[in-house]
Amino acid sequence: MKFARFKKQNEETILQGIVTENGIQQIEGNIFSNWKYMGIIHNEEDIELLAPLTPRHVIGIGANYVGKTEDLPSELPEIPVFFYKPISSVIGSGKSIVIPNKIEEVKFESELAVVIGKRTSNITEEEVTEFIFGYTVANDVTAPQFFHKDGHWMIGKSFDTFTPLGPYIETELDPNKVTVKAYLNGDKIQDSVTKLMIIPMRKMIAGLSSIMTLEQGDVILTGSPLGAGMMRDGDDIICEIAEIGGLRNPVKQG
Amino acid sequence: MKFARFKKQNEETILQGIVTENGIQQIEGNIFSNWKYMGIIHNEEDIELLAPLTPRHVIGIGANYVGKTEDLPSELPEIPVFFYKPISSVIGSGKSIVIPNKIEEVKFESELAVVIGKRTSNITEEEVTEFIFGYTVANDVTAPQFFHKDGHWMIGKSFDTFTPLGPYIETELDPNKVTVKAYLNGDKIQDSVTKLMIIPMRKMIAGLSSIMTLEQGDVILTGSPLGAGMMRDGDDIICEIAEIGGLRNPVKQG
Repeated sequence: MKFARFKKQNEETILQGIVTENGIQQIEGNIFSNWKYMGIIHNEEDIELLAPLTPRHVIGIGANYVGKTEDLPSELPEIPVFFYKPISSVIGSGKSIVIPNKIEEVKFESELAVVIGKRTSNITEEEVTEFIFGYTVANDVTAPQFFHKDGHWMIGKSFDTFTPLGPYIETELDPNKVTVKAYLNGDKIQDSVTKLMIIPMRKMIAGLSSIMTLEQGDVILTGSPLGAGMMRDGDDIICEIAEIGGLRNPVKQG
Repeated sequence: MKFARFKKQNEETILQGIVTENGIQQIEGNIFSNWKYMGIIHNEEDIELLAPLTPRHVIGIGANYVGKTEDLPSELPEIPVFFYKPISSVIGSGKSIVIPNKIEEVKFESELAVVIGKRTSNITEEEVTEFIFGYTVANDVTAPQFFHKDGHWMIGKSFDTFTPLGPYIETELDPNKVTVKAYLNGDKIQDSVTKLMIIPMRKMIAGLSSIMTLEQGDVILTGSPLGAGMMRDGDDIICEIAEIGGLRNPVKQG
């Protein structure tokens, strides 16, 4: 099931719906727990998509893919590179990624994003799936020009518009069987199966749950395949997982 | 005016109030915009304090104090060390700080915390004050044992209970005229005027607002004076700014 959040053109009210072949079936309620159909169908052409949720936290992981299975390390890092992105950086599909003043390019990183559905902590890898609500696509936009020389990434990860999420949350997905792609101006730049993750998704989330209580609405970006590159004013970036959809954002200078 | 959030002993409902000489006057509504007195007074002895708000973001800054005025640098760093702490780490005064498994001590850092009251971005230093709702005290608890060797602090800053906030939000405070103290088991360990901040509070918040849109409920920890030390099972830590109050937390092994 694909959940969408959207507005009707020229209206301010935020609506929710389920994406179907016939259009978006409007729903009302809490997508995590209790919602109902409203009996209204919207055409995709008449709406403006929003990020499919307002996350509680956005948590990312650094450099988490290898190029081929043979390169997967036999031992995992004891302390992974986790980081946060702010809620203020989240935008939906269709909105512009804005390049900050003083720089002329920013990096795209296409990623599988996990939406936590239930409060939990200290879970095992085997238990992880029951706390996942669904999956979406993220573009972990980054301005490495603003990384601190001692490794602090906060500023380079935090500008407004730097976390496109969407287009939808897909609740029925086998995250081990999908391919993460990115197309820059139509050219395929990233294209990796999720099996090439160094720290697999379940291990990553079990590990996070041993640090902090995860909660409904937390979004975990599982890292980007090799090949992530830079974008400039006028570019068009699509981050795609076929089973979820294409997250498309134009890029403009701030 | 001092805002408190609390529960009555053995009850689950979260209440809000104003701290007065006669007790806590219960209020109802949104502390940022529209609230009213309920005509009920609670004794501090009968309630359990909570963190005075659930922040939207918790943003910190690294190593931001010098020991004496003469040591203040003539040039400020171009890229400050900012970091995030998760909402899941926030606790109120009185609750225990829990030392994670596998380690035996964690660091305390007493800090002045700023609560943003209104959405804003790209403001000047002179405009900062009008977007501040009030001030509270933070203990930026840290487990440096979990810092990544390449400088990523996320895990060491993120454990549950690692961000005591409180006891109250004081809306009438001159942040340039206060002293930040910490007492470990009754011994005064930190004691610095806020004038010893390397990046002054207004400059810090103006700078942040050029990166990201700040929003009501964002909490900014302004850094800790020299002298922050380690705490172990059985310790008692008080972080204090006299005009706001003492944020007191026992420490226990997880």
